Parts: sequence; C-alpha cells; structure tokens
Amino acid sequence: MTETAISPTSFNIQKSHFKRIGLMGRAGKKSITATLNELINLLSEWGLEITIDTSTASIDGIHIDFDRDDNPIKIVPRGRMGEHCDLVMVVGGDGSILQAGSLLAGTGVPVLGVNRGRLGFLADINPEHLETELSEVFAGEYHTDERFLLKMQVLGRDDDGNTQVFHESYALNDVVLHAGKSVHTIDFKLQIDDIDVYRQHADGLIVATPTGSTAYSLSAGGPIIHPSLDAICLAPMHPHTLSSRPIVVAGTSKITIKIHKDNRTQPMVSSDGEASVPLDNDQTLLITKHDKSLILLHPLDVDFYQACRTKLNWSLYTEEFSLKDE
Amino acid sequence: MTETAISPTSFNIQKSHFKRIGLMGRAGKKSITATLNELINLLSEWGLEITIDTSTASIDGIHIDFDRDDNPIKIVPRGRMGEHCDLVMVVGGDGSILQAGSLLAGTGVPVLGVNRGRLGFLADINPEHLETELSEVFAGEYHTDERFLLKMQVLGRDDDGNTQVFHESYALNDVVLHAGKSVHTIDFKLQIDDIDVYRQHADGLIVATPTGSTAYSLSAGGPIIHPSLDAICLAPMHPHTLSSRPIVVAGTSKITIKIHKDNRTQPMVSSDGEASVPLDNDQTLLITKHDKSLILLHPLDVDFYQACRTKLNWSLYTEEFSLKDE
Amino acid sequence: MTETAISPTSFNIQKSHFKRIGLMGRAGKKSITATLNELINLLSEWGLEITIDTSTASIDGIHIDFDRDDNPIKIVPRGRMGEHCDLVMVVGGDGSILQAGSLLAGTGVPVLGVNRGRLGFLADINPEHLETELSEVFAGEYHTDERFLLKMQVLGRDDDGNTQVFHESYALNDVVLHAGKSVHTIDFKLQIDDIDVYRQHADGLIVATPTGSTAYSLSAGGPIIHPSLDAICLAPMHPHTLSSRPIVVAGTSKITIKIHKDNRTQPMVSSDGEASVPLDNDQTLLITKHDKSLILLHPLDVDFYQACRTKLNWSLYTEEFSLKDE
Amino acid sequence: MTETAISPTSFNIQKSHFKRIGLMGRAGKKSITATLNELINLLSEWGLEITIDTSTASIDGIHIDFDRDDNPIKIVPRGRMGEHCDLVMVVGGDGSILQAGSLLAGTGVPVLGVNRGRLGFLADINPEHLETELSEVFAGEYHTDERFLLKMQVLGRDDDGNTQVFHESYALNDVVLHAGKSVHTIDFKLQIDDIDVYRQHADGLIVATPTGSTAYSLSAGGPIIHPSLDAICLAPMHPHTLSSRPIVVAGTSKITIKIHKDNRTQPMVSSDGEASVPLDNDQTLLITKHDKSLILLHPLDVDFYQACRTKLNWSLYTEEFSLKDE
Repeated sequence: MTETAISPTSFNIQKSHFKRIGLMGRAGKKSITATLNELINLLSEWGLEITIDTSTASIDGIHIDFDRDDNPIKIVPRGRMGEHCDLVMVVGGDGSILQAGSLLAGTGVPVLGVNRGRLGFLADINPEHLETELSEVFAGEYHTDERFLLKMQVLGRDDDGNTQVFHESYALNDVVLHAGKSVHTIDFKLQIDDIDVYRQHADGLIVATPTGSTAYSLSAGGPIIHPSLDAICLAPMHPHTLSSRPIVVAGTSKITIKIHKDNRTQPMVSSDGEASVPLDNDQTLLITKHDKSLILLHPLDVDFYQACRTKLNWSLYTEEFSLKDE
Repeated sequence: MTETAISPTSFNIQKSHFKRIGLMGRAGKKSITATLNELINLLSEWGLEITIDTSTASIDGIHIDFDRDDNPIKIVPRGRMGEHCDLVMVVGGDGSILQAGSLLAGTGVPVLGVNRGRLGFLADINPEHLETELSEVFAGEYHTDERFLLKMQVLGRDDDGNTQVFHESYALNDVVLHAGKSVHTIDFKLQIDDIDVYRQHADGLIVATPTGSTAYSLSAGGPIIHPSLDAICLAPMHPHTLSSRPIVVAGTSKITIKIHKDNRTQPMVSSDGEASVPLDNDQTLLITKHDKSLILLHPLDVDFYQACRTKLNWSLYTEEFSLKDE
Repeated sequence: MTETAISPTSFNIQKSHFKRIGLMGRAGKKSITATLNELINLLSEWGLEITIDTSTASIDGIHIDFDRDDNPIKIVPRGRMGEHCDLVMVVGGDGSILQAGSLLAGTGVPVLGVNRGRLGFLADINPEHLETELSEVFAGEYHTDERFLLKMQVLGRDDDGNTQVFHESYALNDVVLHAGKSVHTIDFKLQIDDIDVYRQHADGLIVATPTGSTAYSLSAGGPIIHPSLDAICLAPMHPHTLSSRPIVVAGTSKITIKIHKDNRTQPMVSSDGEASVPLDNDQTLLITKHDKSLILLHPLDVDFYQACRTKLNWSLYTEEFSLKDE
Repeated sequence: MTETAISPTSFNIQKSHFKRIGLMGRAGKKSITATLNELINLLSEWGLEITIDTSTASIDGIHIDFDRDDNPIKIVPRGRMGEHCDLVMVVGGDGSILQAGSLLAGTGVPVLGVNRGRLGFLADINPEHLETELSEVFAGEYHTDERFLLKMQVLGRDDDGNTQVFHESYALNDVVLHAGKSVHTIDFKLQIDDIDVYRQHADGLIVATPTGSTAYSLSAGGPIIHPSLDAICLAPMHPHTLSSRPIVVAGTSKITIKIHKDNRTQPMVSSDGEASVPLDNDQTLLITKHDKSLILLHPLDVDFYQACRTKLNWSLYTEEFSLKDE
C-alpha cells in the first residue's frame, strides 16, 4: 500500500455515500483516545458529519469542540447510533467491534474497525496510516462482508405452564455454555433440529459463528470457517469423551441444550463473553441464527487468509517458490 | 425397530416405484456372498427385476439361475448399472459404497447400502434383518440424501503451451495430496478462489466433503460436518506449522494446489483412497465440486448423529436424564 | 478371574500382614453404604480389626454394632486413620481415593479401592466379587504401586518483606491454575527450574502427575503418562497461542508461575479439584513434588493399559490377530 | 551476547581441552561450504588440529591446503571421526546432526552444531557470529547434554526356528512404523514390557526420544518432553480410534510391535527418517534404549525453552510484565 495519501480533493469526498460518520471507542487506553481525536480532526477537515455515542464522548481526553457553529458534532446514545450514521468507525480491538456489532446488527449501517488492540480479525485499519487508508475507503475502494449473529434464548415455563423467554441476547462470535465456575464440569444434552446428538460431560460447549471460529472456538480445537459460509460450529470444552469432535452444521440449524438436573454447579450461558446468565435444569437453551446481520467494511487489500497468516504465523512464499541458497 | 416383517403382500410391492434392482458387492468375503444370494432370493420372490454387474456376477459362490425363463437376471458392466436400475443395493462397507458412488453419481439412481463391513456411515441396512428393513424401504418408508462429489483435475501444459487436463477423477469422501512415500513431507502452496492461503510443509493435505469428514479427515483433526452442508474441509496431515488448523470453506470453492519444485519425493494425489497419480511441479492440482451428485437412500429410523454415537462411542441417556443410584 | 472364592481358612487369614483394616466412603449413594456394610460383615467374619473414620461412621444406614465385646469396631478421625490401620479400603470412585490419598500419603499405609463410581483408574476391586477378590489380596496376591503427590504453595511477602507461605496443599492428580470464572482467560508466566518457559494467555494451566495424566489433563490434550514415570505434565487450557503444546518435565522440577498484574479476574488455584484459593499478582505459585507418596494396592490381574482400554474404548484382539470372516 | 570477540590469546586456546577438532557437513548448499571454509581458517589460525571426514572433504569448493607442512589437515572415513577428534563440529541443520549422532554415539566425543539449516533444536552456533561464539566455547563456556538413542531391531526366525536379528539401527529422534505407502493404514499390536497395550489401525506409530519429541512426534500431537527426561513417547499417526492418545513411558521400556497378517501393504520401519526396512507379519519390531548416548555441546546462553519459543512462536515478556499503553 502506498503511503502517499490520496488527498480528499483528488477523490472528491462529496461523491462518497458515507456522509454521516459515527465514532466509537472504549475508555482506559491512551492510544484509543489519541486515534479518536485524530479521527475527529480528519473527518471534520473533510467536511463530514460526526456523531459520537455518549459513552465514547465521555472518555477523558476526547476533544470535542462544542462551540463551533458549522457542522457541529452530535452526541447520541449507543443504541441510536444506527439512525444517525451512514458508517460507524470503531477504534479498538475485536472486543470493541463485537460490542458495536450487537448494536448495529440489522441497521444496515456498516462498521469499519481501526485497530488499537491486539492483532485481530475484525479491525483492519492501521491507525498509523489513517489518512491514506480512509481516503481509499471514502473513494469507494472497499468491500463489504455480511456477518450473521446467533440469537440465544433461555426458555422455561411461567407459573401457568406457558413457555416463556427468560433471557435473549445476540452473539457475533459465540454463545458459550459453561459450568459457571472454573474446574467444574457440566452434564448436558445436545439436540440439533430436534434430533438427539449426545449427552456430554465437559467444561462447557462453544457454539460459534464463522466469525467466532477464529476466536475461542479455535483454542478448543474447532476448525477455521470461512466468513462467507452459512454454518455454525459446536466445539465441546475439555470433553470427558475423548472421541468427541467439533461438529459443523448448517447456519439454519436449531440448537437445543438441556442440562442434567444433577449438575453440582449452576450452569451459565454467555454471549460474546458478556455477563453470563444462569440456565436451570427445567429450562432450555435455544440457539438459532439471528434474523439481523452486521455489515463489516474492509479496505480492498484486506483478505481473510492474510489475517489468518498474520495472526497464526502461517508462512507464504510469494516469489513463486523460487528457492535461494538458504 | 420391530422384528415383525411387513409381508410383501401387506405393503403391495407393485406400488413401489423401485422395480429394477441392481446388486453390487466385492469378492473375497463369504458374508458378502451369502447376503448377495439372500437378496437374489428375496427380490426374486417379490417379483422384482434383478441386475447384477459383471464383476459381482463373477464372484465365486454367487447363485444365479441362468435357466429360468420368467424374470431373468440381467448381467451388465459396472459402468452401465445406472441405465438398468431404479435402485442399486451395495453389499459391503463404506469402501464398496464409495466405489459405487463414482459410477452412479449423476444417474439419479439411489444407492442403498447393506452393511457387511466394519461399522460405517454409509451402509445402513442390517443384513440380519434384511426382509424387515427392505419391506419398509419398498413400502416407501425411507428418506433420501444427496451427497456431492469432488472433481479432482491435474492440469499442466502440453508441448504447445496450452492448458491440458492430465488426469481427472471424482471423490465422494476425499482427495488426498501426499508425499507418495510414508515418512516424507511435501512443500506446497494452497489457494482458495485464487487467493493465497498458505505455504505448508506436511505429510499432505486432505480435501474432504461432508461425507468424507467422518473418514480420514477426522483422524487428522478435522471437524464432523453434517452431510447436508455445502462445505469442503481442508485438513493438513502432520503439518510442520503447529498453528495450522483444518479450514472449512464453501462447497463452491475453487481449490488450487501447486507443489514446490524442490520436493524430495514425487507428490501424488488420490481420490477416495484409489490408486494415486503423480503431480509434477509444473502442474496444478485443481479441486472443485463435481456437477453430479449421488443419492443415498436410508431407512426412516437412521439418522446421522446416531451413526456418530455408535461409531465414536458417544453416549446418550434417553430417559430424560433420570439418574438412578449408580 | 475365577469366581470360586478362596475360603479364608484355605488362605489362612492369620498369615496376612494386613490385620487392622480401615474403611472409608462418602455419604449420599446407597450402593456405597451397602458395600461398606458388606465389608464390615466380611472383615468381621474373617476376624480382622476394623477402623472407620468418623465421617464414614456417621453415614445414614451404616451398621456398626457398638455392643459387641469381641473385636470392637474403632472410630477415629479421618486424619488419624493412618496410625490405626495396616490397610485402608476406600469405597467409591477415583474422587474418593484422591481425598484419601492426601490423608494417607507418607503414612506407608496402602490404599485399596472398591469401585462404586464411574469407571476409573484408581479403584480396582469389583464390589460384585468382593469376597473372591479380597481373599486373593489377603492371601498376598497383589502388587503395590507408589504414586507421588504434588505440593502446591502460594508464596508472598509479609508486612516485613519476608517470604511467607500463604497456602499449601497436596494433589495426587493435578494442580490447576485457572481464571476463577469460566469464559475468562488469564495472563501468566511459567518458569521451570528458574528458567523462563513462556508467557501464556489461556483459561488456565493444568500441572498433572502421571496419576492425573488420565484425568483432566487428558481432556486438555495431555499425553497418557505411565504411573511408574517420575514426570510432571504441564497442559495449558484453551491457550491463545495455537502452537502451545503440553510439556513433560522431570518429577523433580521446580515449577513457578507468576500472574500478570492486569488480569481482569482473580486467578485461582485448585488441588485435585478441591476448593480454589486466590493467587495475587504479587504472589508466586510454586509447585514441586511432595516428599510423601501414596501406596496403592492392586489385585494381580489389574494392569494400567487394561484400564486405559476399558476407559477409552481401545480395542485388543487377543487371539493373536486371527481374522474370522467378519 | 556481546559481539566483541574474545581474542584467542585472551582466553588462551592452549588451555582448552578440545585440541583435535572434526568438521562435518553435507554437499549441495553453498552456505554450508562457506562456513566449513571459514571454520578451517579460524581453527588453523588458532593452531588447532583439524580432521575432516572423506565425504565432507570431497564437497566441491572446500579449501583444504594439502601442501602445508605444519599442522596438516587429516582426512578420515566418517565412521572413524570419533577416534581422531576431541570435538566434532557439524555444519547444517538438525538432519545433519542426526546423521552425525549415530556415528558418534558412544564415543564420548561431543558434537557442536553450527546452524545452516532451518531453525532447529540441535544446531546452536550462529554462523554469523562464528568467532565470538566459538571463542567462548574454547574458553570453557559451554554446557553438555547427554541424549539417548533408541535401538530398533527387526526380529524373526531363521530356517532352524532360532530367533535372529534381521535388521538393527539407531535413532536419536524417532523410530517410525508406517504403511510403506501414503494413504494406507496398517493394523498392528503394541506391547510395552510384554503387556498388551492396544491393537491399532493407523497410518503408523512414532516412537520418539525426548530429542525427537520436538520433531515429527510433535506434529502428530505428541507432547514436548524435556531432553533431560528418561522417557519415550509413542504417538499414533492418524489413528482410527479417536480416543487414542500419545503415551509416555519410561526410557527403559521394552516396546514390541507385531503387525497383523492381513495388512494390504508391506509395513515398513524407519530410524530418524532414513531408508525404511520391511516388517513382515511373522517378525517382531523391538525398540529399546540404545546403550550408547550422544553428547551435545551448547553455548552457555542456549536453553531448551528458548529454542521452543523461537521455533514455535511462543512469547515472553521479559520486563516482568510491566505493561505499557499498548
């Protein structure tokens, strides 16, 4: 990639269909604050409208000029960013994008990640080449990528015996059933599309999207699943049955889990690593595809396998295998 | 499953749309010959037309009454079984069905496996309950299952520099690139949809269909992929790069492999474990989905996860987790 | 094994060097209580002295005749069983033997397990053949097996800056460092014999003895280590670094773990799955071989690989590979 | 490590107990030849006696001055290097050291590797800092490390029915039983110390020393075993039984393998990847520890875990976990 920035005039920012840009980031890391400020400056200079969510706006050190008359910065709650933006830029690591993902799924507003975390799969923009890389994006040089989310529901019966949803949340990476406490196993039954699969004793079960296949699921022995595939991976965590293996099923599958009444701990469920909710033995955990998806935006030169190579230390000899004297 | 056979009169064999039944099996195992003979008797009794391929017909011990006038048994070459049958029964293990699969793919003629091998995933009918289970199938109590095949092509250039196909074959389970000799590694480059994935040093690479995901790929750490999924798994064999992982991609992917010119052995490629063909360093191995698929026929009470449980020693407590004093 | 019991007179119980027999078991399972009562009767009949720990003696349903004058049953605290017994029989599963192990390590008193749990590696006696199998043991037909324990210490500094042991416990199976909560990772540094090994992000680390190699460590990808080997296995749990592998080091190794100050949860340590203790970031977890070991007693026909085969569904053709027509 | 070479006078080469230095390397790589020539010059300058094996001496481009009178270079067959040297330097990768290992095992002559291959575990000296690093070694700043070898014997009966050794070889890394051809499995039985372990269907079995635990065995899922441990690892290759796991046993174990008579290929055995020999079904493969070991010499600043980190991309934060703003 060339380091000579395409100047905004040369690509004519007016032609970009991204006019209203959202900015999100989390507090606590100086480098994130610095990049957010740099973005505010750059986007203002380019004459774009900026919207910041209240939580990001309250980060210590964020420079928002509330006094300027032209093109004022809007502050809105996180949950309403979708209504006010054509594009949301998230500064941080994969974790920050996961959070934004739940909020923006179904809004049609794409997310662009500026990487200020560890190397990841979701945040592509290098903050050291901000102007260059964003120029390209605003010039229309990007591709989009639709990622589905999982819907997780804890179902049970109310006092009248009617089925009731006790909890519902969404996950871009994974829904994890676990023992609540470390070093404890749970005993549960898995059904897929109402067909029995197995009874398992394990630390838990990871139910991952292709997006999540390169996260926690990977460290549990799950395969890498290309983001374009409509599939879900079920990877048991430290299963007692040594012949257990990750299972990949259709994205349209209905995954049902019931826990055994004799578990010694209170089994819990978590979406994308967020706060866990309990799952009782008279409840059912139902996992299906969410009907809303998230749109990720990537620079043209970013591809999935390149991210795998960088992140997983895979090699590639580009010179068509010509061998030097090593 | 009830052991009380539905008598052919009760289910009215005339209503079955399978009238012309093919029989296939391999020589060398007494139990296969016995089951083939039993099938000849049973199907004759039921007034069905029987076609046997020349290779099966020549098995020592097969009883074919060439003198009978009514409803004579037809003998045809393996490659033409599709034209003469509405249904082909294969007696043997998964290996025998793999062979039949290449022949019958694209013909629309379904295959029903009678298990005379080790426990497998493809041959469902229990030869000890032949009459009962077949009665059910002919009474229309079955479901079908379409399995795609991989097409494997070795491409190179002829003397005039034009691209030429040096070899083409099909695989229901997997295409395996390997070092030709055991205890040797090869050095190759993988591309998916013309995008570089990695350069790998390994014993080889297994490219498996969902059908093949429970075969060789599984012992190389690949996931179990539900047969209904349109996906391909790429599992490296004993890779040098420890962070390599099986990759699952769309069934429509174009998989290209080039080998490094400095390999010390002659790399080879095999489809479904059949005789390997060499792959030179100026050639390309191209793997795509075959445009013809195979139709498997299963009794109604057979399901994929049940086969997994039996084959992989997974457990299942059917009594809704009621625990006795153990 | 023959089912014809060697009658106590025939093997002359007086010659056995096990005269004072301890009995232990846990409450809550009828089958354990029944076997304990059967043992009380059998051992009384054989004229052996019986000692029961207070906790086992208080199990509902245990029949202890406190009125008999001859050969009265002694009740002592768990911690003093070693002083009063020549042999302790533990009725239960591997978990019950782990607990007894800590108490009896270093006493020289061997432990014999009567299996009333799931299939395991430590409890050999089949409760359905109690008399036969015990007759053989008392007739001297057994072998012993010394198992080492790990000593786990949490070290820190007191207010005067002196190193202090904040916690010390022992493990027959494993010491597990973990994140305290499920679905959280910790960041820690491992040293072996004061040499840096790695910094790791993972759910935790399992430090296992050969005895523990067939327990939790196995489900985390650790190898099976023969009980006779003086070695320790370190298996990371779901490590972020995919090229991490279990490491096997000498039993005499000094294993030191320090946690990173920025962990988001409170890291914890557990011995043999017992209650976890916290590990602060200014403390050090030190794991070394305990100077006391446990003696297990096995019937002559029990061997380690047989237990592996039964527990892990490995096969064995005993008829010297003679193949039938399958 | 400082780049300022300790001059030979400063460390007084005369005090070194290595006076007679052997040089070995393989043909075909310019960088190896260059380093060998550099070593000839350096060691001559330092007044040391140089011995080169005939095979290395015949490499195209090696500069041996046969005319000089003082301190002439000796040329001896590979098999007699041990008699003529106090130390043998091997220029190349781990493979070259494996070959030298068999020749020098039991001679007491240590081996020092100069790395001209891919990154490895056995060749420590960096050829770019040859003078500095060798100065330190000759000044006595090194540690030694004894590595055991495996002895592999193919046993059968001669015409008179007497047990006969049909083949015997030695391995520093591993003995590998395999199917002879790729993509074929073999059926064999494993015994350890005359006790049945299992019957296995697999591509083969890797029997590795701790030295070999970081080579082929590692890519088959085997653990990393510290070189100081007296242990052997048995790792099956792509086993059919998914619950198979690598087994670590005492270094003194007697490992016996018999193959099933119905294998479809001719099973073969290889030591350290060298040419394979056939194993018939009336023969026995016996693997035990060789009674001769190899002495490796390492610079003081080289340690095993450092090699693991470099080779396997493990990380280490040396600054005692002090976190910057990332």
